[in-house]
This record gives sequence, structure tokens and C-alpha cells, in this order.
Amino acid sequence: MRVLKPLSPRERLLRACRGEPVDRPPVWLMRQAGRYLPEYRRVRGDIPFLEFCRSIERAVEVSLQPVDLVGSEAVILFSDIFVPVPSLGVEVDFRPGPVVAQPIRSLAQVEKLRAPDPRESVPFVFEILRRLRRELDSRELPLIGFAGAPFTLAAYLVEGHGSPQFPVLRRMLYAAPDVLRALLARLTDLVVRYLDAQIEAGAQVVQLFDTWAGLLPEAEYRQWVLPVHREIAAKLGSARAPLVLFVGGGPHLVDAMAESGADVLSLDWRVDLASAAQRLGSRVSLQGNLDPCALSAPPDDIARRVRELVAAGRAARGHVLNLGHGVLPDTPVEGVRAFVSAAREAGGET
Amino acid sequence: MRVLKPLSPRERLLRACRGEPVDRPPVWLMRQAGRYLPEYRRVRGDIPFLEFCRSIERAVEVSLQPVDLVGSEAVILFSDIFVPVPSLGVEVDFRPGPVVAQPIRSLAQVEKLRAPDPRESVPFVFEILRRLRRELDSRELPLIGFAGAPFTLAAYLVEGHGSPQFPVLRRMLYAAPDVLRALLARLTDLVVRYLDAQIEAGAQVVQLFDTWAGLLPEAEYRQWVLPVHREIAAKLGSARAPLVLFVGGGPHLVDAMAESGADVLSLDWRVDLASAAQRLGSRVSLQGNLDPCALSAPPDDIARRVRELVAAGRAARGHVLNLGHGVLPDTPVEGVRAFVSAAREAGGET
Repeated sequence: MRVLKPLSPRERLLRACRGEPVDRPPVWLMRQAGRYLPEYRRVRGDIPFLEFCRSIERAVEVSLQPVDLVGSEAVILFSDIFVPVPSLGVEVDFRPGPVVAQPIRSLAQVEKLRAPDPRESVPFVFEILRRLRRELDSRELPLIGFAGAPFTLAAYLVEGHGSPQFPVLRRMLYAAPDVLRALLARLTDLVVRYLDAQIEAGAQVVQLFDTWAGLLPEAEYRQWVLPVHREIAAKLGSARAPLVLFVGGGPHLVDAMAESGADVLSLDWRVDLASAAQRLGSRVSLQGNLDPCALSAPPDDIARRVRELVAAGRAARGHVLNLGHGVLPDTPVEGVRAFVSAAREAGGET
Repeated sequence: MRVLKPLSPRERLLRACRGEPVDRPPVWLMRQAGRYLPEYRRVRGDIPFLEFCRSIERAVEVSLQPVDLVGSEAVILFSDIFVPVPSLGVEVDFRPGPVVAQPIRSLAQVEKLRAPDPRESVPFVFEILRRLRRELDSRELPLIGFAGAPFTLAAYLVEGHGSPQFPVLRRMLYAAPDVLRALLARLTDLVVRYLDAQIEAGAQVVQLFDTWAGLLPEAEYRQWVLPVHREIAAKLGSARAPLVLFVGGGPHLVDAMAESGADVLSLDWRVDLASAAQRLGSRVSLQGNLDPCALSAPPDDIARRVRELVAAGRAARGHVLNLGHGVLPDTPVEGVRAFVSAAREAGGET
């Protein structure tokens, strides 16, 4: 479904998310504002990470950098999935991944968690969004908000830190399901309020990052995670802002993800986009999904891969070009530029 | 396909691997000799890991422990996938995962790697196997050998250490494919010789562990990893000893794995065994695949899950009950026993 009238970047993204006709797929990159950009590193300096996220001027500045520096067609709030977590009453440090002082292992700990209004506990997030929205409106660029999904936040809160396979979390699911159920319920409330407030502050699309849900087999995903995604999708209501759902490492979960109510499924780099588009593309839009490591390939190779993704995405009701995971710190800026250029050209634009 | 004549554990495993009729599925567990057993920890003491692997008496002792302590029906060589690697001329330390002093990033480094005969460079491995075989023959228990697969060994050699997503390795695949190709060729030679010598020393089944190949999309897996698996399977020849292939985190790769020539596909816990058995079960046997974390569930729950796996496995030409990854250190011994008991009972044995 193509339209010939050139669209603004904002219209293009919103239409692609909703499965309406577009001139070509929009393009942006997960973690597009980050350490791979020298200009980001200059602003960041040696400011501790959570402090940097709270620094309104700087967060606005680095959020905007990818538009001019690499040509991205959308701006995502610069922040971290852990930003709203300390307000629950949990002590979190970054070294550099989140480390939780007292991991949550009991129902008593869950019951002690606070239920803050994010507008009061992390007001800077919404101020960053309001300022970004003012900057972007004149350029007709779309603004994306985001949150970590409850299962992924729970992963860190239970395990205490990042881990390739989060064994303590997965054991809780089998050995203490009531604790995990209660924790997910609390986090779901937080995430709904948080994304709701982001939409109110100007986010026009919101993305939910469930980076670790792919550790679960499909049956456990359907039991533990899908109901949470459905609840969030239902409570936010896609009429206000399309919801994008990313699940890390989940090639086996894509069909279940399509039952979440999300408008867009953001696919891990291991998912075959062509076959997902053929199976599910009439029901949801797809986002993705170049392997972020492929940005180290020669520019011609990147361009070829982008053309293949664009061709595969045509079978879906809508396609947002993106990576299959965030940009990595050692990524060559040239590779990111080659990706964006190829995306713009793939739709016939020169 | 059932036979009513009670089989010895050795016959049962070999027949299940080859897709011949059995009385019930055999059962063993990946990493069944390990830290979850107090008796293992007693023998291990504070001996450094590689030294422990080289200690013939101790390695024999801990290899045998799971037979009497948890009722496992097969013995796997106690060792580590990195044991044959230092003989290439690479300095490796364990802290506790493998750390490579000088990660391999250039063709010159690959060309400098030695091509040792494992019989000379790691003779203790084969002595352990010969002793185990003598112990096991009187009890008609099968002996399993193993090796790390070339891609997974390359993952550590290139990255320098373990990593959730091995970005340096994956980048090499796109940016310096000639280096990776040369490294995989060297490692394939090593693995073929190593497994060949294990079979000669008494291993009756051999398992190839490709723990990290699931990081690749299917197209890259088919390009980089499948030819390596095929070469190993072809050179070993399954008439001498069935080959079991494990690929970690690879629900999207199971169909490609079935083209490897391996006799048995050992499935990650995230793979749906029922659907794999229906799709591929006429061509290969399957092994697996309970989530190792599910061993923390109550015994009744473990037994129910084992019965489900046994029922699902009936659609395959052969099924070896096992986990979907190795036993984790904090696993309750009771859970492991419950798994093995349920496996024995699921076939009608009391």
C-alpha cells in the first residue's frame, strides 16, 4: 500500500504504525542517541548515568542529535528503562548495568513497594518530552516515548543485576509464582501510569521494551507475559498513541506477541521478518530488524540488507525500518548513516 | 514405537538416538556432574577448574556420581569445552568463565594457531574415557563424549570472554568474514580429531555443544554454522557413534539443525518439543528439553512436565529425556531426582 503524496516524517511513522498507506517505510534506530556518537560522548562527559537521564537540557540535546547527525526520522526520549524504578522504594545503582541493592524475593518485599505517581516522582521525564515536542513540531518529526516492560523490570529486581539467562528470576516462576505474580501486577500499574503520562506530555508513539521475555518458552510467555502486555495495550488505548512492542531474543514468541493488542511488533534481529510479515502482517505492523552488528558491514552490504528488509516488509500492513536491537557502543557512525540513507532510498527517495 | 523386552540403559540410549524401538525414553541431564551435588563440591574442593579437568581420578569419580546419586542412565565425560583449546597455542584462564589473554582478531593470528593431535596434547581426556568405559561396561551403561562446536569456541576466542550477545564476534562476521572463516576451519579440524579420538577411547555417543550459535539469524546460521556441523557429522560418521547436536537459544534454527546430519537434536528449553517432533521427528531423534529452572518446581509439577515431554516426544522417531540446557549450580538435588524418577516412571517402570 503506497501513497505518492510525500508525507511528513510524523505522518509517515504514525501511518506505518497504524497500517495506513505510506510513501515509503519510516526509519529510526533503537538506542540511536548513544555512545557510538562522539557528540553524545561530549555532552555526556563523566556524568553518572541516572544523573544524566535527569538532566533536562542534556537529555533534550542528545535526544535530538540523531536527526541531524545520522538522518533519523523520529526522536525517542533519551532515558533508561530503570528511571522510574527507584520511586518504588528500590535502591538501584548503575555499574554500568542496573544493580539492585536488595533483590526482591518475597511477597513482603513486593507489598512494601510504593505506588508513586510518575508525574511527581520523575517529573523531569515529562519536561524532557514537552520540550522535545516543541522542538519537533516545527519540523513535523514524531516523538517516541518508552518504558521497560514489567517482566524485564522484574528480571533485574529479582535477579539483582543483569545476567545472560536470569536463573533466579526463572526459578521464581516455578518455585514462588505468587511472588512473581504480585510483582508483575505492581510493575504493570507503574508502567501504565508512566506511559500514560508520557503520552500526555507529548509522546506520539510509545514503545514497550521486554528485553528478557524471550528467555521464556512460549507456554510460559503466554501464561506470564502476554496478559501483562494485553493489559497495558488495553489500558493505554491505541487511539491516543500507537504501541510498539519489542521482545528480545524471541523468534519463538512472535505469533503470541501478535495477540497482545500492540499496533507494531518490533522484531529481534533473529526473527525472519519476511515470514513474520506473511503470517501476521495483516494484523499488525512490524518494526525492524537489521542485526545491529551488521552496521559494521561495508555500506553496500548494509544497503542490500535494507532493500531486502523493505521488500520483506511489503507483506505487512505497515513496516518501520529499524534494527533488531539497540545500536551498540562500538558501531561506526558511517554504518548508521549508510543504514538511514539506504532506508530513505529504498522508498525511491534520493 | 515401543518394545516390551526391557533394555539395558546402553541399548536404550543407542536405540533412541538411532530411532529404533525402545521400551521407554532414556534419561540423563546435561551438566549432571556439577556444583549442585554436595559430593561433587567435596571432590572439587578449591582445585582450579582446568586442573580439575586434567585430574584423571577425580574426573572419573565425578563423572560417575550422577548414576548413583540421582539415577541418571548415562555417563558423560566430566570436562569442559575449553580443555583442548590451549593446545592451539592460545592462553586461556578461567575466572570462572573462559578468558582469552589475546583475543583472535586477525588472519595472522589464525594462521599461527597450532594443529595438535589431541591424543598427544590432552591425553588425560582419553584416559578418563577409557577408565569410565571399563567401569560402565559391567553395568551396561552408555558413555557420552562431547566437544564445544567451532562457532561457540570461536565466540570466546574472538570476543575474549563470555558475553550475553558476543558483539565483537558478530561484527567480525559482517566486517571481517575471511578471518572468521579461517578460524572456523581450524576449529573444525580440531573438533573432528578430538571427537574421533573420544570415540576411539570408548565414547559411544558424542554431543556437540553450540551454545552460542542461536545468536545468529537463520540465514547467517545456514551460511556460517550449518556447513561446519555437516562437515563434522560427515567426517565422524554416525555408524561409529551417534552424534547429538545442541544449539543454545535457537528456537528459530531447529529446522536448519535437522539438515546437519546429526542423529539427535538436543533442544534448548525454549523450543516447543511437540511441534519439533511433529515437523522433524521422522528424520531425527530429539533430546530434551525441560527448562533447568523448572527443577526448582514442586516434585509433582516436575513429574507432570516430564509426562508432557514424554507424550510430545512420541511423535519423534526417538526421544532422549534431558534438560533444555545444563543443570544450574543452585538446583535442588531433590528436583533432579524428581526429574529422573518421573522419566523412569513415564515409561511404565516403577
